Amino acid sequence: MRRQNLSVVLGAVAAHAPLSRADVAGRVGLTRAAVSSLVDELIGRGTLTEAAATASGRVGRPGRALAVSGEGPAGLGLEIGVTHLGACVADLRGEPRVWRLVERANAGRPAGQVLAEAAALAAEAEAEATALGLRVRGRVLAVPGVVPNEPGGVVERAPNLGWQGVRVADHWPDPDTVPEPENEANLGALAEYWNVERAAETFVHVSAGAGVGAALVIEGRLFRGARGFAGELGHIPVHPDGPACACGARGCLEQYAGEAAVLREAGLAQHGGQGDPVPLLAERAGAGHPPTLAALDRAGRALGLALTSAVDLVDPDGLVLGGAYAELADWLLPSVRAELADRVTVRPWAPEALRPSAQGRRGPLLGAALTTVRRIMADPTLLPAC
Amino acid sequence: MRRQNLSVVLGAVAAHAPLSRADVAGRVGLTRAAVSSLVDELIGRGTLTEAAATASGRVGRPGRALAVSGEGPAGLGLEIGVTHLGACVADLRGEPRVWRLVERANAGRPAGQVLAEAAALAAEAEAEATALGLRVRGRVLAVPGVVPNEPGGVVERAPNLGWQGVRVADHWPDPDTVPEPENEANLGALAEYWNVERAAETFVHVSAGAGVGAALVIEGRLFRGARGFAGELGHIPVHPDGPACACGARGCLEQYAGEAAVLREAGLAQHGGQGDPVPLLAERAGAGHPPTLAALDRAGRALGLALTSAVDLVDPDGLVLGGAYAELADWLLPSVRAELADRVTVRPWAPEALRPSAQGRRGPLLGAALTTVRRIMADPTLLPAC
Repeated sequence: MRRQNLSVVLGAVAAHAPLSRADVAGRVGLTRAAVSSLVDELIGRGTLTEAAATASGRVGRPGRALAVSGEGPAGLGLEIGVTHLGACVADLRGEPRVWRLVERANAGRPAGQVLAEAAALAAEAEAEATALGLRVRGRVLAVPGVVPNEPGGVVERAPNLGWQGVRVADHWPDPDTVPEPENEANLGALAEYWNVERAAETFVHVSAGAGVGAALVIEGRLFRGARGFAGELGHIPVHPDGPACACGARGCLEQYAGEAAVLREAGLAQHGGQGDPVPLLAERAGAGHPPTLAALDRAGRALGLALTSAVDLVDPDGLVLGGAYAELADWLLPSVRAELADRVTVRPWAPEALRPSAQGRRGPLLGAALTTVRRIMADPTLLPAC
Repeated sequence: MRRQNLSVVLGAVAAHAPLSRADVAGRVGLTRAAVSSLVDELIGRGTLTEAAATASGRVGRPGRALAVSGEGPAGLGLEIGVTHLGACVADLRGEPRVWRLVERANAGRPAGQVLAEAAALAAEAEAEATALGLRVRGRVLAVPGVVPNEPGGVVERAPNLGWQGVRVADHWPDPDTVPEPENEANLGALAEYWNVERAAETFVHVSAGAGVGAALVIEGRLFRGARGFAGELGHIPVHPDGPACACGARGCLEQYAGEAAVLREAGLAQHGGQGDPVPLLAERAGAGHPPTLAALDRAGRALGLALTSAVDLVDPDGLVLGGAYAELADWLLPSVRAELADRVTVRPWAPEALRPSAQGRRGPLLGAALTTVRRIMADPTLLPAC
């Protein structure tokens, strides 16, 4: 009960700061004495700060302004991409305070090597955060692969890295800082949900990196599926007799809307694997390059077909195009929307229900850092009392 | 708290009867005094009966056997199908005690006429239940259409009946017995979930009547979607350039696996709308009639494609073929399974995870009756105390 009240008070300050103790009591419907005791504990745990005085301009004794701490407890997010490593530290207000991205060709390299480099980057990011007065209280690692619903921190399969059954702890140099792996599409969806005001409560978040993934947020919670495999949009059959896919099936969405397929159709296949092809695609499309426009139209049509299945099955409030798709939204949205308009006929469907992500490719790393922040906000007793 | 304890005690008796009060106390971890008070209330509300004595054979004072009442509170289920009306009354043990089906060509008739006939059938079923000592405490109506997530009891669209925006209460003769409409596929899925021991907690239940519908049970709860449209499997595009569908799109699952499409491919189109074509299909298929076998294979392949999308997106523990598909499972299962085996490659998928429903076409009507039963079992205070 107290745990929940701590979270309610912390949440009220996060949403409406600056507030005095009296303001908080008025908002949350607890007595002022109870709120004061909770606030004292929250300050002791490092989650709130209390300033000298407010300039509220209201009648009555001025209170001292409470705010969520920008120092102290923080979350570390890490990301292993096919061509980069990332680290981010976010404070309790949800602000990313440290942000590091380095290019690394990770595909096909031994998992141990990649994870050791990620650990080194993590240590640098933590040192930088410490210098800012932050203290990392949880670590989450975004991976482009499947993380089953089981304890143990295993990445079951990350085809674009060449990983199979990788237990992160087996390769992490420091047993005290082992991060918890999570699928990057899931984290991108959560970052979107946590950062957009009045976000849809039930939505499908599609993200493209080297592969095509999706995540389902259902009634405000990430839905991981019975085993952790939900949201495998990339292998939905869009043209059942289409080209063979690396997965063994034919005509999967990835054969139309995956990075390699789009580059190939755009006549830019030689750019695959050499750094970041997304700005190049955007530049060519912006310049009206016909094969690039045709490739993006084809990708958008296929995405629209796969998303028709998602809308028919899940009945979401919204669809979000994240990851690299967000940067290519100008050219993808028209064909995705056209396909949805043609196909989703048995329920009302507004074109605006499909929108690009606000976070784009920052989503998974931000979501990884915010996971710890959200856990602390939901249960401040996870932090030591002082 | 007491409400929850009442439900726990009632549930323990339902699962393990006969039990004495002492047995219940041992099972639920409450004191014997507390259990006795709860049991008295449950008897007073008509949910439990207590027999004279047990022959437990165990050491100690023999208790008197408690059991869930087979008289008293009951749920009424009603069903409007394209070619029939149905009514069922189930007692608190979940047993269907009254079961009435009448043939009626309901397609295209005024909704008011159909609902008046359903109300007459409901009154007959209630009278029969009363003669058995049962008292109907809730009424649910299964319809082959969309019921949005809004109060008001409106069937937004039931294309195979020709209904659009039908508010049940507007046409029901007795304002005291207006049933709550619910989509038949949802009710079929719930009947399956409630009746199968160790049912999957997250599964997709496909059902075929005149149309093709599905329902998603997620972590033991029906998921209706953001607006109530979830599970529209019938209009998933399986062959995007396929035949035009009545919905306005092309190549929808219904064009391959819907009743009209299967009858047409089987060369039995003239049987559409004339009574029940399912036994005829089963008979022809059983006799090795090549066009019927080809039609069912084509339907199964298309179902496999649509279910691949469902598995990729939702990651269910299981898939259930319900409604008429259950009766045709011998001929559908092989091709559905083959398609799933070819297409679901990015996660483990066991062929046995796809199975025919235990309820078949009885599911929606049974689910409608059990909805009230389950509500009472979850909150016995819904019943008047005596």
